[in-house]
Amino acid sequence: MSARGRLGGHELARALFNPTRVALVGASSDPSKNTGRPQRFLKQHGFRGEVFPINPGRDEVQGARAYARITDVPAAIDHALIMVPRERVPAAIEDCGAHGVPVATIYSDGFADLGNAEGQALQRALLEVAQMCGVRLVGPNSMGVFNFADGLCLSVNAILEMPTIAAGRVSVVSQSGSILGSLLSRGAARGIGFAKMLSVGNEADIQVGEVLDMLCADADTDAVLLFLESLRGAPSLAAAARRAHEMAKPVVAYKLGRSDLGRALAATHSGAMTGDAQVADAFFRSHGIARVTQFETLLEIAPLLHGGAAERARRVSVMTTTGGGAATVVDRLGEAAIETIPASSGLSRSLACDGIDVAGNAIIDLTMAGARRAIFERTLDALLADSRADAVVVVVGSSAQFHPQLTVEPIVAAASRAPTRALAVYIVPDAPDSLRLLRDAGIAAFRTPEGCADAVRALIEWRAPLPTVGECLHDAGAVKAALADGQRDGFNEAEAARVFAAIGIPVAPFALVRSGDALTDLDFPVALKMLSKTVGHKTDVGGVVLDINDARSLEAAMAHLRDALEQQGLASDSNKFLVQSMQHGLAEAVLAFRRDPEVGPLVSIGLGGRLTEIYRDISVRLAPVSLDSAYEMIEEVKGLATIRGYRGLPRGDVDALARAVVAMSRLSSVGAPRIEEAEINPLLIRADGAGVVAVDALLTLSSARD
Amino acid sequence: MSARGRLGGHELARALFNPTRVALVGASSDPSKNTGRPQRFLKQHGFRGEVFPINPGRDEVQGARAYARITDVPAAIDHALIMVPRERVPAAIEDCGAHGVPVATIYSDGFADLGNAEGQALQRALLEVAQMCGVRLVGPNSMGVFNFADGLCLSVNAILEMPTIAAGRVSVVSQSGSILGSLLSRGAARGIGFAKMLSVGNEADIQVGEVLDMLCADADTDAVLLFLESLRGAPSLAAAARRAHEMAKPVVAYKLGRSDLGRALAATHSGAMTGDAQVADAFFRSHGIARVTQFETLLEIAPLLHGGAAERARRVSVMTTTGGGAATVVDRLGEAAIETIPASSGLSRSLACDGIDVAGNAIIDLTMAGARRAIFERTLDALLADSRADAVVVVVGSSAQFHPQLTVEPIVAAASRAPTRALAVYIVPDAPDSLRLLRDAGIAAFRTPEGCADAVRALIEWRAPLPTVGECLHDAGAVKAALADGQRDGFNEAEAARVFAAIGIPVAPFALVRSGDALTDLDFPVALKMLSKTVGHKTDVGGVVLDINDARSLEAAMAHLRDALEQQGLASDSNKFLVQSMQHGLAEAVLAFRRDPEVGPLVSIGLGGRLTEIYRDISVRLAPVSLDSAYEMIEEVKGLATIRGYRGLPRGDVDALARAVVAMSRLSSVGAPRIEEAEINPLLIRADGAGVVAVDALLTLSSARD
Repeated sequence: MSARGRLGGHELARALFNPTRVALVGASSDPSKNTGRPQRFLKQHGFRGEVFPINPGRDEVQGARAYARITDVPAAIDHALIMVPRERVPAAIEDCGAHGVPVATIYSDGFADLGNAEGQALQRALLEVAQMCGVRLVGPNSMGVFNFADGLCLSVNAILEMPTIAAGRVSVVSQSGSILGSLLSRGAARGIGFAKMLSVGNEADIQVGEVLDMLCADADTDAVLLFLESLRGAPSLAAAARRAHEMAKPVVAYKLGRSDLGRALAATHSGAMTGDAQVADAFFRSHGIARVTQFETLLEIAPLLHGGAAERARRVSVMTTTGGGAATVVDRLGEAAIETIPASSGLSRSLACDGIDVAGNAIIDLTMAGARRAIFERTLDALLADSRADAVVVVVGSSAQFHPQLTVEPIVAAASRAPTRALAVYIVPDAPDSLRLLRDAGIAAFRTPEGCADAVRALIEWRAPLPTVGECLHDAGAVKAALADGQRDGFNEAEAARVFAAIGIPVAPFALVRSGDALTDLDFPVALKMLSKTVGHKTDVGGVVLDINDARSLEAAMAHLRDALEQQGLASDSNKFLVQSMQHGLAEAVLAFRRDPEVGPLVSIGLGGRLTEIYRDISVRLAPVSLDSAYEMIEEVKGLATIRGYRGLPRGDVDALARAVVAMSRLSSVGAPRIEEAEINPLLIRADGAGVVAVDALLTLSSARD
Repeated sequence: MSARGRLGGHELARALFNPTRVALVGASSDPSKNTGRPQRFLKQHGFRGEVFPINPGRDEVQGARAYARITDVPAAIDHALIMVPRERVPAAIEDCGAHGVPVATIYSDGFADLGNAEGQALQRALLEVAQMCGVRLVGPNSMGVFNFADGLCLSVNAILEMPTIAAGRVSVVSQSGSILGSLLSRGAARGIGFAKMLSVGNEADIQVGEVLDMLCADADTDAVLLFLESLRGAPSLAAAARRAHEMAKPVVAYKLGRSDLGRALAATHSGAMTGDAQVADAFFRSHGIARVTQFETLLEIAPLLHGGAAERARRVSVMTTTGGGAATVVDRLGEAAIETIPASSGLSRSLACDGIDVAGNAIIDLTMAGARRAIFERTLDALLADSRADAVVVVVGSSAQFHPQLTVEPIVAAASRAPTRALAVYIVPDAPDSLRLLRDAGIAAFRTPEGCADAVRALIEWRAPLPTVGECLHDAGAVKAALADGQRDGFNEAEAARVFAAIGIPVAPFALVRSGDALTDLDFPVALKMLSKTVGHKTDVGGVVLDINDARSLEAAMAHLRDALEQQGLASDSNKFLVQSMQHGLAEAVLAFRRDPEVGPLVSIGLGGRLTEIYRDISVRLAPVSLDSAYEMIEEVKGLATIRGYRGLPRGDVDALARAVVAMSRLSSVGAPRIEEAEINPLLIRADGAGVVAVDALLTLSSARD
């Protein structure tokens, strides 16, 4: 039995979102039961295609002719919704294959979502069946597929009880099914509709990235929201996000897993492993995905992402008719290190003529103007024209509720004159009509100060997908030669150090010595270290002795170290030891490279020493990185402030550090053997101009070689 | 002219909130103008008292007899609202005094709110007038006073255009006027009413604390919300908060100033200085005020604070019908270091009988049960009875929108059987009716996952007002003697060190030496330091030399140091230097005491070294503190993890450190001379049992002595 050709791309999108005939496998005749709902919902929301209930016990279900098996249906089916108990799912998929149904959405659960080996095995077997018979799968454990323009509501979700659902131009892909319902119902309450929605469930086959890719080509979709628990299928998600950017469709993610607890939960809940929040942030940033941290920001942010300054200065202009209300937004922006800029001198002078003194103020408060439309509109025009700010934030008080013509209508007017500028509006009172007025004009309008600040932060931190960085190595031949040493059985510090030297990272000179060697021409004081291809953390086994002042002490230390290792059943490679002059720097960094199972190669830089882990003060990016990104990373490490000119302390060699970050990141391009993990801890940072120097080296190859 | 007796307490509360006759000074006959609104609003919202418009240009205003001056009114007035331009405010207040009006609410602005010296002078002059003629003031720059049970809406706020306003049992005091409108309108949209509201404006006279104190005695008020920009009048606020706790009325604060930007803004906006977020947190914590960080949590949290466990374990139980929805709350809780606990073995077994396997899961997900009421209710009963958790969080999915009888009604039923347990409900879809059903049953119900997590965190971090800590000094006589040295002209390190020794903090032994002294019996290596009563940071002027190994080097270092100081026009006191053996510890801390201008004496402990400031890793409390609080503070300093048994590192003497924190905090009780600031940087923490030792000492007295 060989696998049948399976649908993808445009054809798959059509079957998924625009089917002409759908089958409901396991449809109940009781319209209140979960399995009875989809048929009712399709009718209620005006699906124009044909619906075929599949139920072996009945000839008719909810007024429609029913069939025992999908193979009995006397017409071609585009899309089947599978709602039978899990043990009957594989047979249902086989029937789909036999009848030529190209895609099935599986509501049934009890597969990888169980979080145990049994569930995973069942899911693997199911996927095999689907691949064999040429059926693409959504799910299992999917809450369904929606295309509101067509009334396609292929789901059991009770949220579809809503009498009508308006269509909009934003689509959603979610790893949580119930979240779709939440967005749908919250959107409906505010007059926000969606274009398409899809719950990927366990992603046995179709993953978030493939759906996003289909939505890139969807004429009804202007922007895509992602609710993510994990980064399963990261490469396809990355490619799709880059394509969305090319199509000028913003992609926004809310991802669980900001806390350890959240990560653990996401793992059990969806059966997927999740990386830490920083890895996810690095991934989103590299591929042009905006990330929000407040759930409802998902509903509100889309219009904001169609504007924005090219260069991000972390600066906004804020105007308001209510000082206290504006302060609730500005306080939050300040927490994200975003500043406000005062009015330009021209605007200040112009407002002064109207008796409003805003000169030098962090926010431009027009309360004094008593919400006069002309002043409000003129001020907003001036702010939108002022390119110093990344975005303009307008905070409107009670006038939004009772006198929208004074403040809300002028926002719409001013925005229409500056359609490419980023503008965010927070409405302080409850004023649903004003929110809707703004949204209908394509202006980002927010219900809460936290949502507004979150969206502005997400906009400012968003970057266009990073261009692919040249991966050329410092000296590919030298790297290959250095890697040859440890290719078979791993790298000890000396061997790893040679690799780092070959990629262009300065390494402290060292000598390999053994007991009895002449030790007189060393530059004391020195450090003595064991050599091992297997012991990763040498200090944990007492394998490092520091500050040895003379040859005699060194000889003694070697003897002592050899004995100490022996007692633990360890030995230094070839009974040689590494001896290195003690090095000094202004600060210590930890520079590391690793391959994340989800997102691939990563480079990180953090402050060295015991506190690194405690403060988690580390910057992470997908590797390789450009020199610009390396500088940005160094800037993000708070503890490295000490070498950036903090409080008159001597500046460290940030340039050399940035070059080292770039060099380390390029380990991603070493293909055979593939490097799994590399770490320099510490990398000493010397005074400006004096460079950096690695005084330790750790390198591991991937066990599965390419 | 002597000041007239001025109203306070119950009498003032009656005049403010329950006036029989009010005067509107500066009332306009145009009901759409700001100054024409209050008269219209009072009528619209059913104020039953008499209203007297004061307008020198008219005999009649909006159908009521008008008077030129308040002194012309032929009846006693309880409460006047002043809306005239600022230059006419003092005369209006004089008129109030002449007519025996006990309290005036001043809407007029242009006083301290201008943020300049002119405005402040005008406000001082105004307060003097009011004090002279016996009138209490709300404002200036107040958005008014509200008592919804009486229809008293003494305000120009456009929010009062709402046709009707329901009364509730929660009151609000705000330093921002517009925020009252926001709470009022957002509350109305959700069916949440308020009892009383007051905008304190510039707080020239009546401050937040005095209003809170009145509300403690108010039979219509069950809880009080504070919107704060600063902690003006902190002592009266503290006393009122403690009284509210005695009356079992929770007090909740949202305070601006979490970021530097927010603080700067609050300062200009209200003309008040604000301390940093940690100082405010310390203040709230000491006095039993819960602090929320999301604005709308103010609307939602009150019912939660009537429950809660006595002992806080930072643990909650979470049950849900939607895994993804619950994860959005739990992820946030995890960020606040709050854990979830799995179901008890009893509950797990009982659910297993219904085919629901929750054993060991972080959240108790009943999705599998298909929202069956009996199971839902039984599970919640079990969780509410389980005292391991500080609170129970229930996250309800789509059933809340269409089938509240399945999940929402059982919550109400279960909660009624466990009225003292803390219960928070987050509703995932838009389901205003379910939110209202819960709220009407006195259950805390939340619209957003962030609001729910914020409230649960605020509950868990809330403490009953701390009991007053005994302030007895280690040895009051010794402290007095040690303080005598520096009382006149300040303390050099040696003098400050004697004070610390006297309060019971171990200080490293030192000798005072001068050039030519016999230096042989010192315990080398030593540190050499200048002595100065004026130079605070000795290292900034090169006044410290470390690691001196012998007498000859010491003599040379002294000569060098003397010359170096001379070149800066400085000298060591009496040409003596402080010599101290180099000390070692496992970690360095900074232990400090200072008097904050708003909240009073504070004690803080942080990690020593250059990174302290960068990471702001410091714990702050109002001084004095108990030993329990000192341990709690040490626990809060992340960087001190290294001495708390982190990763097998040797434990430091946390007990000795806690005792030192307590001793430092008791400097608050030293009255004459009063200590303004004290700092030990560093305080070395030695291995467990080996104590702590101060190796530097800084002490400053208050310039204004008591």
